[in-house]
Amino acid sequence: MSVPLTTEATAACCAPRVTEAVSVEEAERIARVFKALGDPTRVRLLSLIAGGDGGEACICDLTEPVGLSQGTVSHHMKLLAEAGLVTREQRGRWAYYAVDRDALDAAAGALRPA
Amino acid sequence: MSVPLTTEATAACCAPRVTEAVSVEEAERIARVFKALGDPTRVRLLSLIAGGDGGEACICDLTEPVGLSQGTVSHHMKLLAEAGLVTREQRGRWAYYAVDRDALDAAAGALRPA
Repeated sequence: MSVPLTTEATAACCAPRVTEAVSVEEAERIARVFKALGDPTRVRLLSLIAGGDGGEACICDLTEPVGLSQGTVSHHMKLLAEAGLVTREQRGRWAYYAVDRDALDAAAGALRPA
Repeated sequence: MSVPLTTEATAACCAPRVTEAVSVEEAERIARVFKALGDPTRVRLLSLIAGGDGGEACICDLTEPVGLSQGTVSHHMKLLAEAGLVTREQRGRWAYYAVDRDALDAAAGALRPA
């Protein structure tokens, strides 16, 4: 079967995997992303953003559903952005976040069989 | 397309996803698995086990490659086992670990598009 080599497919297919030999550096890169995903509040924030209009959400709409202060939510969003799982765009007063599908695909790809 | 409903397929298809609405409990369950994956030593241990003979490894063969004491490696293995990512079998003096493919598939499934 021939598969078009989109960026997404490449990201998912060629990232190092936990199921095969990984170098120390690769293990650190993989772990960094999963560490960002390893917190219930951040999982809920990702879920809220992915379910937002156009797959994005204003930080002003994220604080109430998770019941946390804007400072705490900002901190979690910073960790998600540093892990590459979301992108951030400033629009006037507010930051808008979108889920980075390629990063989620690459993380899922790291768990596939070798 | 008809897909046979194996345990693996069910695990991958029906687990809650970070890309759609998740309850607080679902977010906690998802985050627990990713937290276990969110450490470079544990990623390397999983990689060593998956690459072992028959997809398993004796704890006695895991300490040297990661350069840590058996106590530290045992602690990491306990966290991986509690997250359901590995199974443990005692054989005489040593514990043997195998990667749980269904659990990895379910974790990857949680990152798929809604």
